[in-house]
Amino acid sequence: MVATDDKRWIVGVDLGGTNIVVGLIPTEGGGVLGRRTLPTDSVRGAKFVVDRIIAMVEEAISDVTFSFGGSREDVAGIGIGSPGPLDRKTGTVINTPNLGWRNFPLRDLVANATGLPATLDNDANCAAFGEWWMGAGRGTSTLVGLTLGTGIGGGIVLNGKIFHGCSDVAGEIGHMTIESSGRRCKCGNYGCLEAYASGPAIALRATEGIETGAETILPDLVSGHLEDITAATVYDAAVRGDAYATAMMRETAWYLGAGVANVINILNPEMVVIAGGVTHAGDTLFAPLRAEVRRRAFKAAEERCQIVAGTLPGTAGVVGAAAVFKQQHFGAV
Amino acid sequence: MVATDDKRWIVGVDLGGTNIVVGLIPTEGGGVLGRRTLPTDSVRGAKFVVDRIIAMVEEAISDVTFSFGGSREDVAGIGIGSPGPLDRKTGTVINTPNLGWRNFPLRDLVANATGLPATLDNDANCAAFGEWWMGAGRGTSTLVGLTLGTGIGGGIVLNGKIFHGCSDVAGEIGHMTIESSGRRCKCGNYGCLEAYASGPAIALRATEGIETGAETILPDLVSGHLEDITAATVYDAAVRGDAYATAMMRETAWYLGAGVANVINILNPEMVVIAGGVTHAGDTLFAPLRAEVRRRAFKAAEERCQIVAGTLPGTAGVVGAAAVFKQQHFGAV
Repeated sequence: MVATDDKRWIVGVDLGGTNIVVGLIPTEGGGVLGRRTLPTDSVRGAKFVVDRIIAMVEEAISDVTFSFGGSREDVAGIGIGSPGPLDRKTGTVINTPNLGWRNFPLRDLVANATGLPATLDNDANCAAFGEWWMGAGRGTSTLVGLTLGTGIGGGIVLNGKIFHGCSDVAGEIGHMTIESSGRRCKCGNYGCLEAYASGPAIALRATEGIETGAETILPDLVSGHLEDITAATVYDAAVRGDAYATAMMRETAWYLGAGVANVINILNPEMVVIAGGVTHAGDTLFAPLRAEVRRRAFKAAEERCQIVAGTLPGTAGVVGAAAVFKQQHFGAV
Repeated sequence: MVATDDKRWIVGVDLGGTNIVVGLIPTEGGGVLGRRTLPTDSVRGAKFVVDRIIAMVEEAISDVTFSFGGSREDVAGIGIGSPGPLDRKTGTVINTPNLGWRNFPLRDLVANATGLPATLDNDANCAAFGEWWMGAGRGTSTLVGLTLGTGIGGGIVLNGKIFHGCSDVAGEIGHMTIESSGRRCKCGNYGCLEAYASGPAIALRATEGIETGAETILPDLVSGHLEDITAATVYDAAVRGDAYATAMMRETAWYLGAGVANVINILNPEMVVIAGGVTHAGDTLFAPLRAEVRRRAFKAAEERCQIVAGTLPGTAGVVGAAAVFKQQHFGAV
């Protein structure tokens, strides 16, 4: 048990391109209390976003201290997860295309406004760390997390700590080239895993096939508006038995399998946790994914690695951000 | 300074598919003493190879103790590097296609015959660790090593320790897919970096082009025997200004660049050390390699990572094997 100065809760903040999620996590671990979600509305500017985060933090603290008895003094501090790249030491977001920020001192703005100490780490790192602390990865010592969404975020947990590399960039698994002259990725590189298996990439691949004449119910599901096709539409069609959509899901599993096999050959982790909307597809995705990994990865590594869905949908990032705070302030999680 | 029980030397053994290299390394670090190299001759069977290793170890010890004054008592033990996969705990080589061994207790056979304690680790891990201890990587804390030869070996050093993963497989960077439906690799997977940028892969790509009519001096360099083309032949032709061979070297750099960029995006190391015969090509290889990495990797990671040639050609494995022994027996290197 780590000494936590008798503080009962840590606030977790998961700042995403679409939503902000905030909640309190018991210092000793547990579920998210006082959880609230609001749109990020980043177009309204950085000040708006920071003010919204601060308001959500204060509301969550009021809620929880009121419901459970206790006071603001029982809150140890705030762990913030944000898109990167970022500088953990200075608490600065260096550059986030999704939010349009540059060298933005997010951590200290939140800490100064609330009067609480705060930490900053990458959102995908936090999601992986959350699954390690309280989710699918409990009890493992080496884990890799992949979050499939608008992009593909990655986080590496080694010996119970997030692995950051020498300049806080480590874990960018979504930007691993799996086709060296493949699709252009938003990051500027070619053939990244993200360019094939993120939500928008799945939708794009499906739409391209339809434009070249594939037979499928997908256009019917979006009343002919192909631009409305999302990864969820593709999954829906697959569930309804659509052969084309099923093939698209299998192709996604195939690309993901190449990426996960790479992770396994390089890092030999005990577990790969996959989170995000795409995982709702369940075995439609995981069965061919595991088969592809078996086909590609070294047996001695693959047979020691569980490939599982995350068990903290929507809250892994909040839990992990709080865990980062705990580790940094109390020495261990 | 680590307490080393007043032992003066550690024996390093680098067992490869082609050669065995043995030498003594001063416990506090330094150059290889009493170095000797003999062919592995694995076709003569496992007993022959082990006997040869033991004889080489004894000769190296006699040589060095005679030359420098001292006795067998001054030797702390033996670090062995071997192709894997292997089990470090039991000191067993699980399976090496190149040597034809299965579940072979290499470490204890050598230890029992010599009466000296021994350790076993992967050869590519040892090469990376050797470069970290005494070579290009001195003073770094995070380093990735790639050895380009018959295959592509990889080793990861994190915080001054070899990173092994959960079943001693970590670091198989040569078997990272960079073309998900690409060339078949000896490991069974498709599109591995090794299938494009190892010595034999470079020769094969060059030969394929010639068979489809490429204009080049390469056939002349091997008196028309295309099967004699090696990576060194391709490099020779490039140095002589052959456009086709130069393009082949650039293509090699391009594939390597994709692989190194992946390593940088995932592990964000301070340094990538590239060793092996192909590095004799110098800037013919490194200039386009660095350019390709810049094009692909995250700026915040790439600009913090040096990509350099190893500085211990032929001995990195021996030095690293000794370093593994030192770390395991004396706690630190």
